[in-house]
Amino acid sequence: MTTGEHLIGFGTSKSGNDTFYGKFASTGNLLPTSFHECTSEELEAAVQLAKEAFPIYRKKTDAERATFLRAIAQEIVNIGDELIETACAETALPTARIQGERGRTTGQIEAFATFISDPAWTKTIIDPAQPNREPLPKPHLVQKQIALGPVAVFGASNFPLAFSVAGGDCISALAAGCPVVFKAHPGHPNTCELVGRAILKAAQSTGMPEGTFSMVHGRKHTVGTHLVQHPSIKAVGFTGSYQGGKALFDLAVRRPEPIPVYAEMGSINPVVLLSDRIKTQGESLAEGLSGSICLGVGQFCTNPGLVLLLKQDIDFLQKVADKLNQMPLGTFLNEGIASAFQIGVEQFTKHPKVKKWTKNEVGPNLFSVDSAAIAQHPELLEEVFGPSTIAIVCENKADLIQVVENLPGQLTGTIQAEKEELEANMDIVEALEQRVGRILLNGFPTGVEVSAAMVHGGPFPATTDSRSTSVGTQAIYRFTRPLCWQGFEF
Amino acid sequence: MTTGEHLIGFGTSKSGNDTFYGKFASTGNLLPTSFHECTSEELEAAVQLAKEAFPIYRKKTDAERATFLRAIAQEIVNIGDELIETACAETALPTARIQGERGRTTGQIEAFATFISDPAWTKTIIDPAQPNREPLPKPHLVQKQIALGPVAVFGASNFPLAFSVAGGDCISALAAGCPVVFKAHPGHPNTCELVGRAILKAAQSTGMPEGTFSMVHGRKHTVGTHLVQHPSIKAVGFTGSYQGGKALFDLAVRRPEPIPVYAEMGSINPVVLLSDRIKTQGESLAEGLSGSICLGVGQFCTNPGLVLLLKQDIDFLQKVADKLNQMPLGTFLNEGIASAFQIGVEQFTKHPKVKKWTKNEVGPNLFSVDSAAIAQHPELLEEVFGPSTIAIVCENKADLIQVVENLPGQLTGTIQAEKEELEANMDIVEALEQRVGRILLNGFPTGVEVSAAMVHGGPFPATTDSRSTSVGTQAIYRFTRPLCWQGFEF
Repeated sequence: MTTGEHLIGFGTSKSGNDTFYGKFASTGNLLPTSFHECTSEELEAAVQLAKEAFPIYRKKTDAERATFLRAIAQEIVNIGDELIETACAETALPTARIQGERGRTTGQIEAFATFISDPAWTKTIIDPAQPNREPLPKPHLVQKQIALGPVAVFGASNFPLAFSVAGGDCISALAAGCPVVFKAHPGHPNTCELVGRAILKAAQSTGMPEGTFSMVHGRKHTVGTHLVQHPSIKAVGFTGSYQGGKALFDLAVRRPEPIPVYAEMGSINPVVLLSDRIKTQGESLAEGLSGSICLGVGQFCTNPGLVLLLKQDIDFLQKVADKLNQMPLGTFLNEGIASAFQIGVEQFTKHPKVKKWTKNEVGPNLFSVDSAAIAQHPELLEEVFGPSTIAIVCENKADLIQVVENLPGQLTGTIQAEKEELEANMDIVEALEQRVGRILLNGFPTGVEVSAAMVHGGPFPATTDSRSTSVGTQAIYRFTRPLCWQGFEF
Repeated sequence: MTTGEHLIGFGTSKSGNDTFYGKFASTGNLLPTSFHECTSEELEAAVQLAKEAFPIYRKKTDAERATFLRAIAQEIVNIGDELIETACAETALPTARIQGERGRTTGQIEAFATFISDPAWTKTIIDPAQPNREPLPKPHLVQKQIALGPVAVFGASNFPLAFSVAGGDCISALAAGCPVVFKAHPGHPNTCELVGRAILKAAQSTGMPEGTFSMVHGRKHTVGTHLVQHPSIKAVGFTGSYQGGKALFDLAVRRPEPIPVYAEMGSINPVVLLSDRIKTQGESLAEGLSGSICLGVGQFCTNPGLVLLLKQDIDFLQKVADKLNQMPLGTFLNEGIASAFQIGVEQFTKHPKVKKWTKNEVGPNLFSVDSAAIAQHPELLEEVFGPSTIAIVCENKADLIQVVENLPGQLTGTIQAEKEELEANMDIVEALEQRVGRILLNGFPTGVEVSAAMVHGGPFPATTDSRSTSVGTQAIYRFTRPLCWQGFEF
């Protein structure tokens, strides 16, 4: 059962008068618990506790923080079916998907616990003293990564567990030694509360200071704005829309003390299909691509919203459309996403330069446009969140490379090519490398492995900081900075 | 001999009508060569060449780039006495200092050449495929650091070699695989031209593409503004004043595509002096501190402009003042710095809360103020560039810690303490750790070692990006980002 309270340190509060409710995503009906827009006093209390917790929390040993993280994972499992049922109700995602996502979430927590259990995570560099060096002695220098300070994290709507309360942003910040003030996503507030309480149980049972974690609710921009502007907040993690992420970035860099913002803002994830690959693998390619387009009702940051192919291969699009015509649309996470999808699809359908390949009135969509039209119509490269993909039909390889070079920054880029074909087209690979955080050969971009080598990031506007990843253990370094100790005996 | 030309790719230009001259720093007399304010066409040409060079330059092997860097160092040495004489003339720094700085500069270049000769520099992470994993196979993932793109670098006035044309910013960007468009410092334009031509000679003799390096001149903000706003520029390196660095930061984050700015903007570098240390080491402490204050006419980013000590130890300040009274002021780098120093010193001298300890009319200065006055007078924590230091006299340890906690971000913080005293005062160390990029025990902050463990950086406003260092080999990662290859065979 949820209470609708903000979780402020080890206490709770819901003093605001402005309330809202979680909804059954499949019907739009309200769930029973009322949530309260966070007041400025409540927000101040949460941030103040985080500030006070920081000097204590950052000095906890790596082993102590790893124990805390593992306790979080255990407490999430302990919630049991209530978590699965609540998340399914609030998102309309299938039970198996949410169960899988819970496993991904606890697996990710375990990965960070393991990562910080190896002292190598601090990237210690030691330059030994040379007391007899001429003309000046060399001092003893030790560099390590240290925690930045209290972090504000904004959860995503599309992964109610893996990119939400105990998702990669929050857990990587906690792993680094940073307290977190979490802004719950209003799309699944009940799910958020269950997980938030699990984190606090873990914090209490493992002796973490009050303020290590707090969670506040709000549907309005005010809460997030005040959080990002608060002088005690030292970094921001965000996953969501371009509008939301860019707004937080703009606030953060205009503070008297600017702070880093790691906003992962989505992407259309170009997939380049080369001719030999289409010839030899056409059937499985169409199968794989249409599956990737429809996975999770197309509501993934890495959804392949853009296909690039040569004019000579245009018939392949009919194969993909045939597959998509047989696939159901599914239920969106919320009404906002559903209506934005309908608007986006209508705009493409009515666009004078766009051809629609799918026959569905309601369903996944495939469109195409000639490359020549793209320069005049940059709106065709805007993300339609959901199962909708547009193919850019290119005159020739040089044309295709130019399209790639002019793409806005992307989380991923994929090339589908036979072995010899790849060798002859490394210039396409090199052009893609410049526009993306992850480049895939003969795969599909959905399915983001949680591992050390993963980069879930990329050039702006895919993210606000291409030097980082929000998935995988390297995500911890978004919330650290190097400190050098000179002349200390260690 | 210099020509006053902009070095644009392998060509030169000086088409602007607006001219200026380098000056003999000691007399203010003009040097003969006229320099021309860069026109927008010249700037566009330089950036366009950098953009075109990037895809070629970034694919040069590490060994090829290392050869290029070493050729730069050799060409700098080859300039011979002309470089030393020109730099001395334009900065009034002594010959021995400039000779030493040349060695530091070429040593730094060699350090980066060595660093990129070890493939470990790319921070490669490999997650091997697990094709039989259930429920889904794990793909082969490889993460490496890749170059960001063309970088704009602004040289500092106070190190005409080590933080200027072939200084750490430019060389770390070139080492990473990023072309550089360098904005020469108008305080030493002739020195800049000599070094710029050395870089271009090296680029040509080692087969680097045209546009790998260009250098433009200008005294006005226009050149820098246009450079930072140019869409083909992907990062900015800067060393100089808060006003200059913050202005570039504000421009960069307001671009349609925001880019990272690494501005190192100075610092007052607090030195905490504890009682036992003062008692047992008073004489050498006064000697070392006054020497550090006056080193290089106080014109170092790491100059100790702030001392913190307890009221009971206030007599120690007289010891330091006695030393400073015997030390000459020296000649400043330029008239601007000299007059800013005089204004700063006058403001402190006239300040109702400030006591002046030194007797000099013209010379290095030591002031003090009670800690209680700081909250009302934050202007007393502003940097006076040059040999001027203010001591904050604290009531007790708790008071001292509070002063530290309220300090703006600093490049360095120092604690002078006897062994047992240190153990009893680790809370001061921990407070300092939160405010600085480098913390020193029983040393002085001037003298920044070029090595792997160095951090020459720190929380805002010491820099605009506390996650980085501008000195030492880790500086290269300011100009890289991670890319993940999925499913590729390497």
